[in-house]
Amino acid sequence: PSKIKHDIVDFAINIKSVAVHDPRRIAHSLKVALAITLVSITYFLEPFYNIFSDAGIWAIITVAMVFEYTVGATLSKGLNRAFATLLAGALGLGADSFASLFGQTVKPIILGFFVFLIVALATFSRFIPNIKKRYDYGMSIFMLTFILVSVSGSRVDSIIKLAHQRLTAIVFGGVIGILISLCVLPVWAGEGLHKLIVKNLEELAKFLEGFGGVYYRISNGDKLFFDSYKSVLNSKATDEQSLANSAWWEIGHGKFQFRHPWTKYLEIGDCTRQCAYHIEALNGYLEEKYAPSEFQETVKEPCMKMSSEVGKALKELGSSMKLMICPSSSYIHIKNCKIAIEELNTTLKVSMVADRCDVLEAIPVIAATSILVEIIACVETMSKAIEELSK
Amino acid sequence: PSKIKHDIVDFAINIKSVAVHDPRRIAHSLKVALAITLVSITYFLEPFYNIFSDAGIWAIITVAMVFEYTVGATLSKGLNRAFATLLAGALGLGADSFASLFGQTVKPIILGFFVFLIVALATFSRFIPNIKKRYDYGMSIFMLTFILVSVSGSRVDSIIKLAHQRLTAIVFGGVIGILISLCVLPVWAGEGLHKLIVKNLEELAKFLEGFGGVYYRISNGDKLFFDSYKSVLNSKATDEQSLANSAWWEIGHGKFQFRHPWTKYLEIGDCTRQCAYHIEALNGYLEEKYAPSEFQETVKEPCMKMSSEVGKALKELGSSMKLMICPSSSYIHIKNCKIAIEELNTTLKVSMVADRCDVLEAIPVIAATSILVEIIACVETMSKAIEELSK
Repeated sequence: PSKIKHDIVDFAINIKSVAVHDPRRIAHSLKVALAITLVSITYFLEPFYNIFSDAGIWAIITVAMVFEYTVGATLSKGLNRAFATLLAGALGLGADSFASLFGQTVKPIILGFFVFLIVALATFSRFIPNIKKRYDYGMSIFMLTFILVSVSGSRVDSIIKLAHQRLTAIVFGGVIGILISLCVLPVWAGEGLHKLIVKNLEELAKFLEGFGGVYYRISNGDKLFFDSYKSVLNSKATDEQSLANSAWWEIGHGKFQFRHPWTKYLEIGDCTRQCAYHIEALNGYLEEKYAPSEFQETVKEPCMKMSSEVGKALKELGSSMKLMICPSSSYIHIKNCKIAIEELNTTLKVSMVADRCDVLEAIPVIAATSILVEIIACVETMSKAIEELSK
Repeated sequence: PSKIKHDIVDFAINIKSVAVHDPRRIAHSLKVALAITLVSITYFLEPFYNIFSDAGIWAIITVAMVFEYTVGATLSKGLNRAFATLLAGALGLGADSFASLFGQTVKPIILGFFVFLIVALATFSRFIPNIKKRYDYGMSIFMLTFILVSVSGSRVDSIIKLAHQRLTAIVFGGVIGILISLCVLPVWAGEGLHKLIVKNLEELAKFLEGFGGVYYRISNGDKLFFDSYKSVLNSKATDEQSLANSAWWEIGHGKFQFRHPWTKYLEIGDCTRQCAYHIEALNGYLEEKYAPSEFQETVKEPCMKMSSEVGKALKELGSSMKLMICPSSSYIHIKNCKIAIEELNTTLKVSMVADRCDVLEAIPVIAATSILVEIIACVETMSKAIEELSK
């Protein structure tokens, strides 16, 4: 019993964290409920029922299936559904009248053959990457509608009327869904992607700006503050991919125009993840066993400079992306980084030859600084992508 | 016109590559077409039509919606759909009879309130990670069925009969879908995950075994052979995640039992990706500008040993995973790696102190060997996970 109680408490905490993490999720749940309740009313009220008849449930099904968290995803599913229904409906009617030419006995066989053919083709097409990316839902609805129309044709008297009612109902449901998603507290996929990428850049900048200080035990480095880069490691490429896919469908909103170059964001996202992996490796060199050595002290100046300058460059890139302006000073910071790399190489050369230093002390320092050099290269790539984006 | 022709040719090549990449996709398309055509026949034949009446279309909808590429995904959607329909149907009937107690005028208001409540709760629950992972589709069907049943209640005379027919049709469609997915050339998600992870291990092993030779310009290193690790970089964590989610539903098949520890595979998958990122960094040191230097020659022996031994360890881990036996000799190879690391450190120490070597030549060599050390640590983690898996 105490285990069950424990499980229930856990579950409640889990639910609370889902809501606290993004309160718009509650708003979304209420929006969906509102949209569906609105459409259900059409089934209760006589004037609407006279228009749609029993096809009214298709308006409800449409809202329930089409309403997604972001505006873009809702638009994508709504438009996919509407066009797929229209196209498949027309094709289905055509197949039905073609099959009717051969008399009632042969008709089911011909229709069955068409169904087999269309289903096989549609299912296969969903494996093609470009179709999968944008029209996957449309393909599945196309297939389903074609089957329903051509199969119902043999049982329903006035198939044209049925098709007309159902299409009207689906368009009605789709429009209600899209309008509510668009007008009531809209959640934009594009804006979400933009904020996510900016946040990731800022997290990485925070680590790099602080790294030098912690590496030389000047500052202690807030643990929490320091683990922030891990969220970038865990941020999934697919989340960004699906946001970018949804954003493709969105009309202009806020600072973003229709057909904003969202794929550029994916490139920048990949760079930040790559950078986070390097940082993960760098983080290992903050462990106690690599406590400041004499050798480490000799390269203190260039090393501190590299980490703080690359951090500043990233910060500048993040804030210029946030404001959607061309980064102005990141170029200088990256240049400073490169000067620091030169300094580092000179210092290393001098100190190692002169001091006959302990080489076992030197190895982790050289390894750590090499990672910093890689991070700088990574940030330079990012900077180019962000510059292109701001054009 | 030549552009259009070009586009068409491109598209055809695209389609062909989709089929060639995995010919089972063609089989899958034919399987779906077969299942749907079979179920459609129930709509044409009188004896079946007498059982299902118009609810027969729900059998078709069910097959079309539930049939997925892998057995596990089909089982997951089929079971989700069946149980969600059953539960929501019962709840909907309950809500309908409860609302009927208050007379015909108040009834729609009470039903509307229930619909609002259930939709809001169900939509919110889909944000909870554990529910999203396994019951996302079930939740959406639960919501939809509840709405359909409680809304139809006000329009249909014999709601019990309708609910019964529809449930029978859905179970019939689900069973047909699952049976065909299971019996005709089944594609197992679990087996797919297993093969994917083993393949990734083998790709990494190939690179590491060959690395030493190419680094010292002993062998040329087939370019194609060497880029193989890139497929691991591009293999997405989410593909593995979704395969593991589907595999959770699968009954025992081949060498895998029901409830095989699929989550362990995800851990190993993360390790391989981590390792591939290190290899990406290591690959940079194969460039021309790091052509063999004098200093590099001094650490040749331990360096060659590290790369070949870690490669052998990975190969052994891959093949023991493939055969699902406990890795026997990987332990020895990892131990050899560690001995080589000691040797490397000693050699570095001696050579740097004795020769007053060129430190600029030494830095990339130390950096590259540090990455090798990190890879060895990574493989050790992997080896532990694979050992646990084999128990």
